[in-house]
Amino acid sequence: MIKDYQYMHRAWELAQKGVGKVNPNPLVGAVIVKKEKIIGEGYHEFYGGPHAEVNAFRSALESVSGATMYVTLEPCSHYGKTPPCAEAIVKNKIAKVVIGRLDPNPLVAGKGVQILEENGIEVDYCYMCEELTYQNRVFLKYIQKKIPYVVMKTAMTLDGKIASRTGDSRWVSNEKSRARVHELRNELAGIILGVNTVIADDPLLTTRLKTGHGRNPIRIVVDSTARIPLDSKILNSADLADTILVVTDKADSEKIKEVEDLGNKVLVVESLKGRVDLSKLMSKLGEQGIDGILLEGGASLNFSALEAGIVDEVISFIAPKFIGGAEAKTPVGGEGFELMKDAIELENIKVDRFGEDLMLVGKIKKGSE
Amino acid sequence: MIKDYQYMHRAWELAQKGVGKVNPNPLVGAVIVKKEKIIGEGYHEFYGGPHAEVNAFRSALESVSGATMYVTLEPCSHYGKTPPCAEAIVKNKIAKVVIGRLDPNPLVAGKGVQILEENGIEVDYCYMCEELTYQNRVFLKYIQKKIPYVVMKTAMTLDGKIASRTGDSRWVSNEKSRARVHELRNELAGIILGVNTVIADDPLLTTRLKTGHGRNPIRIVVDSTARIPLDSKILNSADLADTILVVTDKADSEKIKEVEDLGNKVLVVESLKGRVDLSKLMSKLGEQGIDGILLEGGASLNFSALEAGIVDEVISFIAPKFIGGAEAKTPVGGEGFELMKDAIELENIKVDRFGEDLMLVGKIKKGSE
Repeated sequence: MIKDYQYMHRAWELAQKGVGKVNPNPLVGAVIVKKEKIIGEGYHEFYGGPHAEVNAFRSALESVSGATMYVTLEPCSHYGKTPPCAEAIVKNKIAKVVIGRLDPNPLVAGKGVQILEENGIEVDYCYMCEELTYQNRVFLKYIQKKIPYVVMKTAMTLDGKIASRTGDSRWVSNEKSRARVHELRNELAGIILGVNTVIADDPLLTTRLKTGHGRNPIRIVVDSTARIPLDSKILNSADLADTILVVTDKADSEKIKEVEDLGNKVLVVESLKGRVDLSKLMSKLGEQGIDGILLEGGASLNFSALEAGIVDEVISFIAPKFIGGAEAKTPVGGEGFELMKDAIELENIKVDRFGEDLMLVGKIKKGSE
Repeated sequence: MIKDYQYMHRAWELAQKGVGKVNPNPLVGAVIVKKEKIIGEGYHEFYGGPHAEVNAFRSALESVSGATMYVTLEPCSHYGKTPPCAEAIVKNKIAKVVIGRLDPNPLVAGKGVQILEENGIEVDYCYMCEELTYQNRVFLKYIQKKIPYVVMKTAMTLDGKIASRTGDSRWVSNEKSRARVHELRNELAGIILGVNTVIADDPLLTTRLKTGHGRNPIRIVVDSTARIPLDSKILNSADLADTILVVTDKADSEKIKEVEDLGNKVLVVESLKGRVDLSKLMSKLGEQGIDGILLEGGASLNFSALEAGIVDEVISFIAPKFIGGAEAKTPVGGEGFELMKDAIELENIKVDRFGEDLMLVGKIKKGSE
């Protein structure tokens, strides 16, 4: 059992190497074990590339016949960009397959296992199921709903402020916490923010990893009436990353054209209470193949997103310090709910330390929205 | 070494039984061990009562001669309400004393150890020093500075709110967290709050422990101009606990008399920027023998307390939920500091889980105030 865990952990580790490179496909890692020795390993390296199982077979220097394969996700059963892995496993005479997580993709869903079992291969399940589900949480939602998985990221002081009363926010959280945010930008295909943040901070929102540049997320700016300054960095850096300006039909068509002329996309979305309907926006972004989004909103956009029910997960950095200020901004503003019992709750909460900062990760409790 | 730790942990556990009963004296526990067996134990049970060492001797059913004593705080060397424990240890022919924490009380400070060593008793130090220092943090400050140790307690949502926009705060934190607050009220001699909290919530601020009622803290209301409603619960419950109304010379003398007539005390303190000078207030409360205070302030009083530098420790409960509201109140308000680098920082941070709530405990970093 301990051995099983170690092999699956290695497969998880391999899968993790695909972060930022395989969307909207899943992260997958595979390890082939014979006589308690790893004889092959592989992972899904890039979108459209060979699957983890195939890369593991290719890496093996001895016969894999009779070996056990540990794979983080159910082997596929359909002809997509590559032939089905379940068949490759049969062909290679693997004796047993340990699967981390079944694939809810309707094209796979249990059919991979079926092929294996029909061919006399022993199948075992779900080591590290929680970690493996978390690793592919973006894929698992997107493959079923075609709507992006949304991670709301906030950073505040211990008195709940995202900036001082004067708007100074450098820095709320420490260097380690900020490095984690860049990992999230690399992991998630898009990043969403409100136009007020563009006006106030003029950010570029690119990704800086310790190991290099990483993947820059598609920048999505919610801006109902197209108030964005034409000289903002985000509109003038199409060479670094795509930008999508999201407006309603109240936006000026001249301004839209000017934004587009700078090399950016403009998406016109239905309005709700005079603002961009965020649920409709998510469907449209899903249609464009965007499977995961980091919400780095200001107080107002964050409340709208929570109220619209589009947030799946929250990552909250808490810096143990006090800045004070009755007028200083908090992570979630807007109108707010009337009664404490109406608050939106989190579940599956994990807490980590980043130096002195805390990082709390949780999922939005369904039905509490 | 493991054994030593176990005995000192037992002494710590015994000392803890005195919480809420011995102030402004220290919590002390003692264990007598002979041939790896505990043959006596005792603790400081109530203010003015026999010391832990004496209670341990009294409990022993066999001769303590040649035994080792584990005691959480340095044995006293002076004639106070009881004769010096160091002499009792000598008289009882204890062979070795293991001390958890030296006593900074100028009447003791190393003199206890000196008496032991001069009489040929082996002395060893500081098992569990961090825990033992924390256990007596109130005593350790008060004995040296004659100013109360102040614990600021806050409870907020993950978006930094202490109530909804409508002022609803039932409940921010969960039952377990609230039970911990009642333990704090039992532990600390006084509780301080602003008059706005009295006006808004009309609290009674008594202590409800799982094990019974506990000690009700002295209720200290900061109210520069004596705005407190005469029919508030806190002014009409002198049978339950003392109340001190803290005013400046701007308070109406008629109102002061009315408050006093209800059985409450009124303390007139110098003003600073038109408000009660909190540093001066702390000195006055110290003079009255109040060694520890729980600050359950609203946003405004909390900022004043942090700014005045009177806060020693922070206990912050964080409930993983979002209530939203740009107008909803946060734990620390007031004017606020201008720049994030001026924030008041915490150190020695510990994090605990109370169900889904987080509890963060830290000390105010000196020099960051």
